[in-house]
Formats: sequence, C-alpha cells, structure tokens
Amino acid sequence: MGVVVQKYGGSSVADAEGVKRVAQRIVDAKKAGNQVVVVVSAMGDTTDELIDLAEQVSPLPPGREMDMLLTAGERISMALLAMAVGNLGHEARSFTGSQAGVITDAAHGKAKIIDVTPGRIQTALDEGAIAIVAGFQGVSQTSKDITTLGRGGSDTTAVALAAALKADVCEIYSDVDGVFTADPRIVPTARKRDRISYEEMLEMAACGAKILHLRCVEYARRYDMPIHVRSSFSLKDGTWITDQRDGDETMEQAIIAGVAHDRSEAKITVVGVPDKVGEAARIFEALADAQINIDMIVQNISAADTNLTDISFTVPHADGQAAMAALTRIQDTVGFSSLQYDDQIGKVSLIGAGMRSHPGVTAKFFTSLAEAGVNISMISTSEIRISVVVDEAQVDDAVAATHKAFDLDADDVEAVVYGGTGR
Amino acid sequence: MGVVVQKYGGSSVADAEGVKRVAQRIVDAKKAGNQVVVVVSAMGDTTDELIDLAEQVSPLPPGREMDMLLTAGERISMALLAMAVGNLGHEARSFTGSQAGVITDAAHGKAKIIDVTPGRIQTALDEGAIAIVAGFQGVSQTSKDITTLGRGGSDTTAVALAAALKADVCEIYSDVDGVFTADPRIVPTARKRDRISYEEMLEMAACGAKILHLRCVEYARRYDMPIHVRSSFSLKDGTWITDQRDGDETMEQAIIAGVAHDRSEAKITVVGVPDKVGEAARIFEALADAQINIDMIVQNISAADTNLTDISFTVPHADGQAAMAALTRIQDTVGFSSLQYDDQIGKVSLIGAGMRSHPGVTAKFFTSLAEAGVNISMISTSEIRISVVVDEAQVDDAVAATHKAFDLDADDVEAVVYGGTGR
Repeated sequence: MGVVVQKYGGSSVADAEGVKRVAQRIVDAKKAGNQVVVVVSAMGDTTDELIDLAEQVSPLPPGREMDMLLTAGERISMALLAMAVGNLGHEARSFTGSQAGVITDAAHGKAKIIDVTPGRIQTALDEGAIAIVAGFQGVSQTSKDITTLGRGGSDTTAVALAAALKADVCEIYSDVDGVFTADPRIVPTARKRDRISYEEMLEMAACGAKILHLRCVEYARRYDMPIHVRSSFSLKDGTWITDQRDGDETMEQAIIAGVAHDRSEAKITVVGVPDKVGEAARIFEALADAQINIDMIVQNISAADTNLTDISFTVPHADGQAAMAALTRIQDTVGFSSLQYDDQIGKVSLIGAGMRSHPGVTAKFFTSLAEAGVNISMISTSEIRISVVVDEAQVDDAVAATHKAFDLDADDVEAVVYGGTGR
Repeated sequence: MGVVVQKYGGSSVADAEGVKRVAQRIVDAKKAGNQVVVVVSAMGDTTDELIDLAEQVSPLPPGREMDMLLTAGERISMALLAMAVGNLGHEARSFTGSQAGVITDAAHGKAKIIDVTPGRIQTALDEGAIAIVAGFQGVSQTSKDITTLGRGGSDTTAVALAAALKADVCEIYSDVDGVFTADPRIVPTARKRDRISYEEMLEMAACGAKILHLRCVEYARRYDMPIHVRSSFSLKDGTWITDQRDGDETMEQAIIAGVAHDRSEAKITVVGVPDKVGEAARIFEALADAQINIDMIVQNISAADTNLTDISFTVPHADGQAAMAALTRIQDTVGFSSLQYDDQIGKVSLIGAGMRSHPGVTAKFFTSLAEAGVNISMISTSEIRISVVVDEAQVDDAVAATHKAFDLDADDVEAVVYGGTGR
C-alpha cells in the first residue's frame, strides 16, 4: 500500500460544493488502495478577509498575532474537509501544522521548516484513517508559538510531509492542468509538459511561472520527492516533476522546457557611480540592510574618460519604494549622481536543461526577439536559463516569438486555464 | 500587584470597533496596576456561520471535527484583540485553550475541564505582557485532540484560569449591567443586586437566569473565586458573586435574591402508570438512556380504587421529541395508558439564601400568585428556592406579582438591557 500526499489550494475548496468535490476525490484515492494524507489551504478569500480585519484594528499587527489570526483559515477548511470525507463513509482526522509535527524557525510570516515529526499522522494512517493537514502553518521550535510559512507555504507543507512519510508521490492540485511551455493566455499554442526536471521547474518558478513556489520545488529536489501538478477540476494527468537523472524511459529529452515571464519587477539604475573598489558593495549592503530582494544585476564598464559607471538591478515592485529610500540615504557617501526607476518592464526567460549541451540557443533566442522588434535592456544567464528584461508592452510578443522559434507550439491546442496557485 | 481575569463575550467583540473598545478597557486595567488575563469568545455571529458551513458539507459532523472548526472562532477574536492592545502600546500575547493549559476530558462539544496548567500564561504575565486566551476550548488529556466546553464555556474558562492563577477577581463582561432581581424586560422596577452568593447564583442560573452558566458558578464556588458580572458598555460596578460566609460587612442580608423564570421547558405527563415498585425507575432509566435531561418531577399519590398513578416531569424543548419517542418504546412493557405533552408552560422560581431561616416565604409566594390569578401545575423546592410551573401566558404576571410581594421593586428605575451571554 502506497502513501499519497495530496495538496488542494484555496480555489479548490472555495465553498461547500468545492469541499464536497475534493472529498470525493480524496475518497477515490483511498479506495484505489492508498494511504492518503491531504494538505489543504484556507477557503477562497478567507485569508484576504482576515487580513482586512487585522488592518481595521491595527496598522502594524505583530507577526506572532498575525500568524495566530491567519492560521484560523486552514483550521476551518480542514475541519470541513474532514467532515465531508466522513460523510462519504471514510474516517478522516484533521491536524493543525503543530499537531502534524511541522516544526519551523521563529520567523513569523515567513517561517522555514526545520523538521517534520509526523507521529500523529502516521498513527492515523496506521489506523486506516485519512489525515487532513493544515497547510501554510507550523510551530516554532524555540518559542512554541504558531508560525506561517509565507507565500506558497501549503505546497511546501505538502512536499515536506511527503518526504517525512516517504510517500510515493506528492500531488499538487489547483485550477491549472499542469506546467505549460508558456502561459496559455499569452501563447494559445502552449503545450502541457508531461515531465519536467526539478532544476527546470526551479528556474521556471524563479522566473515568474506561478504554478509552484520556489521553496516547494527546492524541498522536493533535496528529498527527491516526485511532484505531480494537476487540476482538481479534471481527471487528466498533469505534469510530473522528477529527477531526470533517474533515466526514466518516458522522460522527454527536450532542449527547452518552456518560456516564463514575470511582470512583477521594477528596474532601478544608479547613475554615475565612482568606479572604485567597494562602491558596488556599499550599494548592495544598503539594500540588504533594508531587506530588499535583488534579482538581476548589470554593471556597465566604466567610460574611460569619466571613471564613472552605471549599475542597474531589478527588485519586486513591492520593494521599489524602500529600495529608492535606502539608496537616497547613501547618495552623499557613495557619491553617485542620480537614481532612475522604471516599473514598466518585464522579464522573459528561456529555460531548459538541454541548452547546456546545445550551442546556439542564446543566438537563436536573441534573433527571434530581434525579428519580433523587441529591444533588450538587461541580460542574465545561468547554465539552464537565459533571461532578458524588455519593455512591459513587448512581453507578450517576446514570449510568443520565443515559443515559436524553439518549436514549442502544440499541434492540437486544448482549452486551458492558466493561473497562479494560492498559498 | 493583583491578577485580574476579564472575560468578554461575543457581543462585546462583534466588530473591529468593539475589539478596539475592549482593548482600551484591558489597557485601563493594566494601567491601574494589575496583571491582566483576558478570556474572549468568538466574534458576534462567527460560531453560527461556522455551524452553517458544517451543515452544508455534512448532516452529522463528527464531534472532533466540529470542535476543530468552531475553535477557529476564538482564534480570530483573540488574535485581533492582541493586535488592538498592541496598537495601544502594551504587549499582548494570544493563547489557544491548549497553549493556556486548559486540559479537558475527551467529550467533544461538552468537554469538562479536569486541570489547568497555565505555565505560558504565568510567563507572559511575569514578562509584563497581557495574556489573551481563547475561551470555550481546551485539549483532551488522553487523545490530545482539541475540545470545546459547550454552552457557557468561555465563562468557565475564565473562572478556571482565575482559580489556577490565584487571581483576585474574575470579571465577566457582557451587554448586561449585572444580576437583577428579575428580568427587567418583564419587571421594569427590577433592581441590580450589588452582591449575591454562589448558592443563590447557582439556583438563579439553574432556573433560567441567562447571565451566567451553571458550570461557571459551580467552578467559582468550588475554588471560592469572586466573580464580578458587569457591562462592557459602561464603567458602572456590576454584581459581585462571592461566598457570603466570609462575613463581608457590605454584604446584603436580603431574604430573597431574586425571581427567575424559564420558558425553555416542556411538561410531559405519563398517564396511568401501575403503582408498583420499580415502574418509575424504568421510565427514568429509559429517558437517561436517551440522554434526556430531566428537571422537575412530580408524582401524584395513586388513587385507591385504580392503583394507577400519573408522573409528570419537565424537559428542555429540544429534548421533547426524543423523550416522547423513548417513552413510546417502553409503553407496552411498563403498561402506562397514555402520554401528554405540553410546551406552553413556564417555570417561575423564587430564590434566596435568607428563606432558610424565614418561615412563611412559601405561603407568601403562593398567595401572591393566587391574587394575580395564576394557576400552579407543578411545585418543587430546595432549601433556598421554590419553583412553580405555570401556563406560559401567565409567566410575566407571576414574575411581576412575586417581585412586588417580596418588596424587590426599586425606588429609582434605571434603563437597562437584559439579555443572555454568548458562549
């Protein structure tokens, strides 16, 4: 008998009907001979409603209390789901993150899982019950306070539990059929991939594909836990995320996994930085002190006659204002001349483990962009990824042109819905 | 520095404004030099909304999951309250029943507190913080599952915590000014009592006064914990419930504490029961097996010529149907002739520790009812209480006449609102 961990997002359990539909699906997995553990997010808009309530009573709620508040969301969905499963004649027991043994550090709102001790879950399974676990939450090892894992937290809960229980597979259900070669809303001919490697999925997630969160994929890769991304609204197979190195015969040998894009970043340019040792370090230290996450960085070589250089980098929109403020504070000491801020940008990334051994990928990528009339303002590369920053208005054209140039278009196009998963 | 435990009901924290108002009140108690522990119920209609959701997914939800679901309610209110207190510049930490050390038996939906180990609350107080505790909930000693305490549970949580922390007082806040000599909606001249004994309050609660639940008062009496019942909407002193035996000089020496009434019961009469040993036992065994709570019981003496007797008793309306079914099942074996069911009744009770040593109270009570034209259909007495069952339509007249006969009317009548507390 195998162990299957299933994770359902908030859109799958948005109302009583959704809860009952998911319950049937869980029972089907149990009837198929599996031991079933289910990780569930808060229902639909619950989290937003709770955040709204918090804002009404305090402009800056303490992290500990915010976590206590938000974890009420999964408590509701998991209890309802356990009831609905029970109503179908199968015993289900719900467990909070703490009861499920999800031990984290004490960083409220963005806690990291440091251990999983699923003793009560294992007991429930051994006694023939289905275990329903609250996603997104855990308990601090030091303070014993309730913590939340931040964005994508429920996916991470599912993979961490699957690893601790040595499950056969971790199924991540959402309203999307799987991982596509590009966002089907932009590229109607985008194909669903049957399989993709951890590495490729990591780059896809980092480059704006919202289907899975980075931390969840990192966790799965570390523990070699196969993830099956699929829709809770259909019975079709989705996309398997596995370690390509295991030499599975059915594994695709595609050069390119897909084209990802991201409109959530802004570009900041520090103009006229004195080209001396340590100036760049002082700039990025100031940003790190302000807790700003930096993505791409480009530094031009200094013009010989001025000995001044420009440094450009991208940050999430949400961090833009704080980044500008942090830089303004050090303008006098560093001595740069001005700052430029541009939030009308987009990032387009070409991802594929195959490009490692295929020369010419970069040239083909840039040629396709040039032919589509797309201007490139920043470039960054890794072994299995090339990313470019372009005008926001040209993102769609860039994605479509690249998708076509690398022969990713499907012969038969299915109607698909492509959206992000919740927490 | 004294320890004060305050309990706020759902109507006091029904919305963000209410939460902020209560937060200010908590901070005032802290500024007055107290260590403050707050027990809070779920906001306004939260519990009803959660029950409604449960009914949508399952007609008969398991008790364990129902408790998991309902406890989300206090989780929300306590976190919001802690945030609101924090916003006023005082540290507050919220704790679930489990975290607060409220240990119960495993009877989901109606668990009993068997121990309180408030180590984390004491630590919070020692560190200068205000502790906010979820009412109504605990954790099972044996299964480690989350439990709820049933109706009036939050009041019981507050008294139990106050006892464990050796608090100076347990303040129970609601939308009522205190304990009145009768329901002011029926008797506009009813007076708020300044003090009342545990015994009297127990009888008042048992006889329909909704201001405090029976279990909470029992707990307070057992641990000799003074309760101060007061309104969260005013700063006026409410009613102190204490042990009269401590000889406090300011204690009132009234003969009668008040007049309580209860419209929540129905009367069942078993007609024509053979007057043999053990017949009554078989009837009440059948009712006990069906988990029916019996209140008053009256058995007439058997008529000499028939050797048959009638047995009447009262049950909560909610148990009426089940009681009739249980009795019908044993009709053939017991051999009674018929059943009568009457839910148009009301119980009026006169309560006062003083009546022990004052002869003539019973006569005066019955005379006042007779003069008001009220017919009595059942009578039951204890050392400090006399209860009668009357027609439901005559309850108001009976309460008013009794209140006047025992000189309970106030000289100055204040506008008051009288209602029940939540859980």
